Amino acid sequence: MSSHEHQQFIIGVDLGGTNIVAGAMTVDGTRHLNIRSIPTNASLGDEGVADRMVTLVEEVIRDTMQQTGVERSDFVGVGVGAPGPLDREKGIVLVAPNLGWQNFPLRDRMHDRLSLPTTLDNDANCATFGEWWQGAARGGRNVVGLTIGTGIGGGLILNGVLYHGASDMAGEIGHTTIDLNGRHCKCGNYGCLEAYASASAIATRAREVLVREEGESSIPAMVHGRFEDITAQTVYDAAKAGDSVANEIVRDTARYLGAGVANLLNIFNPDTVVIAGGVTAAGDALFVPLRAEVRRRAFGPAVRAVKIVPGTLPGSAGVVGAVASFKQQYLGGM
Amino acid sequence: MSSHEHQQFIIGVDLGGTNIVAGAMTVDGTRHLNIRSIPTNASLGDEGVADRMVTLVEEVIRDTMQQTGVERSDFVGVGVGAPGPLDREKGIVLVAPNLGWQNFPLRDRMHDRLSLPTTLDNDANCATFGEWWQGAARGGRNVVGLTIGTGIGGGLILNGVLYHGASDMAGEIGHTTIDLNGRHCKCGNYGCLEAYASASAIATRAREVLVREEGESSIPAMVHGRFEDITAQTVYDAAKAGDSVANEIVRDTARYLGAGVANLLNIFNPDTVVIAGGVTAAGDALFVPLRAEVRRRAFGPAVRAVKIVPGTLPGSAGVVGAVASFKQQYLGGM
Repeated sequence: MSSHEHQQFIIGVDLGGTNIVAGAMTVDGTRHLNIRSIPTNASLGDEGVADRMVTLVEEVIRDTMQQTGVERSDFVGVGVGAPGPLDREKGIVLVAPNLGWQNFPLRDRMHDRLSLPTTLDNDANCATFGEWWQGAARGGRNVVGLTIGTGIGGGLILNGVLYHGASDMAGEIGHTTIDLNGRHCKCGNYGCLEAYASASAIATRAREVLVREEGESSIPAMVHGRFEDITAQTVYDAAKAGDSVANEIVRDTARYLGAGVANLLNIFNPDTVVIAGGVTAAGDALFVPLRAEVRRRAFGPAVRAVKIVPGTLPGSAGVVGAVASFKQQYLGGM
Repeated sequence: MSSHEHQQFIIGVDLGGTNIVAGAMTVDGTRHLNIRSIPTNASLGDEGVADRMVTLVEEVIRDTMQQTGVERSDFVGVGVGAPGPLDREKGIVLVAPNLGWQNFPLRDRMHDRLSLPTTLDNDANCATFGEWWQGAARGGRNVVGLTIGTGIGGGLILNGVLYHGASDMAGEIGHTTIDLNGRHCKCGNYGCLEAYASASAIATRAREVLVREEGESSIPAMVHGRFEDITAQTVYDAAKAGDSVANEIVRDTARYLGAGVANLLNIFNPDTVVIAGGVTAAGDALFVPLRAEVRRRAFGPAVRAVKIVPGTLPGSAGVVGAVASFKQQYLGGM
């Protein structure tokens, strides 16, 4: 170690369906440098997207070297978070519907091109791990993370360790049934939490309500009558502006999420539930009725043991968590 | 250790609302001696029931000494499994509705009377731990256990360790919502798994169906027309005899349980789900449609990673698990 007078860095990469985010962090996590985002351009295919990831990492490394004076040998490795299901041991993304990938050896491709040790982990696991290491779940020992975007991803930290399950499939919280005979989910099942409370489900429910009660809401005017343009963000914006239909949709979302979170409390008895993603833009309009629904549904001792909080690392939780996952998988601990 | 030429023993005690079961096991788990059961007589109150537990343990110790020639000093301690919620660290049963207990310091009471180190753990955790150590879940690393009786208890073994959560409340799998607007559960919530698939729920559903379709079933004759005498066992017996109404009730039970188990697969990705309790008496009539429903609802990789099996330690899983919990809590490992 004496030959290294500089700090050592780990690169984190968060691969999403829309954007690739990467950045450099010191091994101890105290410095974040050059966190940047580029479009994924999924239509380029697996090799094309991997090219973009490699190029982005090289840029982050180069700029970090220039800023800090460290050398390339001061970069310990690369942690990658990617949509799953995946095989961590083999470093393969098994299926990624949003990217159109199947059985792509992402870890080895990155490793071959960058000549740096590389680890792979699930993106939702990484987001939760990031919030645990440096965000809203800091200090937690048993943490459930939900990342609510187009879908609902989940991550579990149990007894202070990221939990992966028997075949790296753990944490698919979005695909837990809250209504046995309920809405069809794109996973094929019925009544999944994701089919009610994801950003796309919120937009769908808004369209359904507005077909019936258009005159009472400001939303149709916001999208110039094009219902297909309604997004979850439209609903949050309208709710903040006092639109009663939008507020009802947010309250329903809180109720669905509350049922899902209450299940997690009764199963895990976590000390922290951290909810990240666009839905947190709804703020108290979501979190106040969400916490109330959880109190109604979960056991008192489990409710009293937990805090339910929004994530505090929007945009970077995945990168921070990919670095944390690299530390745990490659360096053997946090 | 050289002064002990004999084997050392741990006593396990499983406190239930109906029976107290206790027995002696060698520390390595290879020998089970004097497993016996007495009625709880809950009406005696907390101190009275604790007296009965102490007396039963003393009998097991005395008989084991006589049979093996070991001395009292060869008994390392006592593991107790009790209904929860409880505070393991303080050794207190916080609330046990079936016993009418509140804040009873069961561990210290046992310890004071027996002068042996004593640990306390949740009964459903113990049942799962027992099946993991010596029963159907042996060799599993991530195990979900369901004990289906009057209620539905649950236990989780994650990465080979019994998981308790932030305040010893983890594993309340019976109280996870599978139908947001569904049946009222005695916990106060709506749509809990327990409200559909516990033994008492099975009996309730049978009564509801038979009020409508009495003529088609053999069940009314089995209970001499006294519908209040219908139990889950009546339903299993009728189903085995080919009663189509009873078989439909068992299939519905499988469907509800399947939704609950599928949730656990998507959340935990366990290698083993072990289902214990009276409901396993239904045999393949339950397990075949249960596994089919899980396949329909859970992700393929999670389904392929798991075996869903009936418990193989009926009557003794709780005692074996209480011994295992003592080992993990007091001796620091298995």
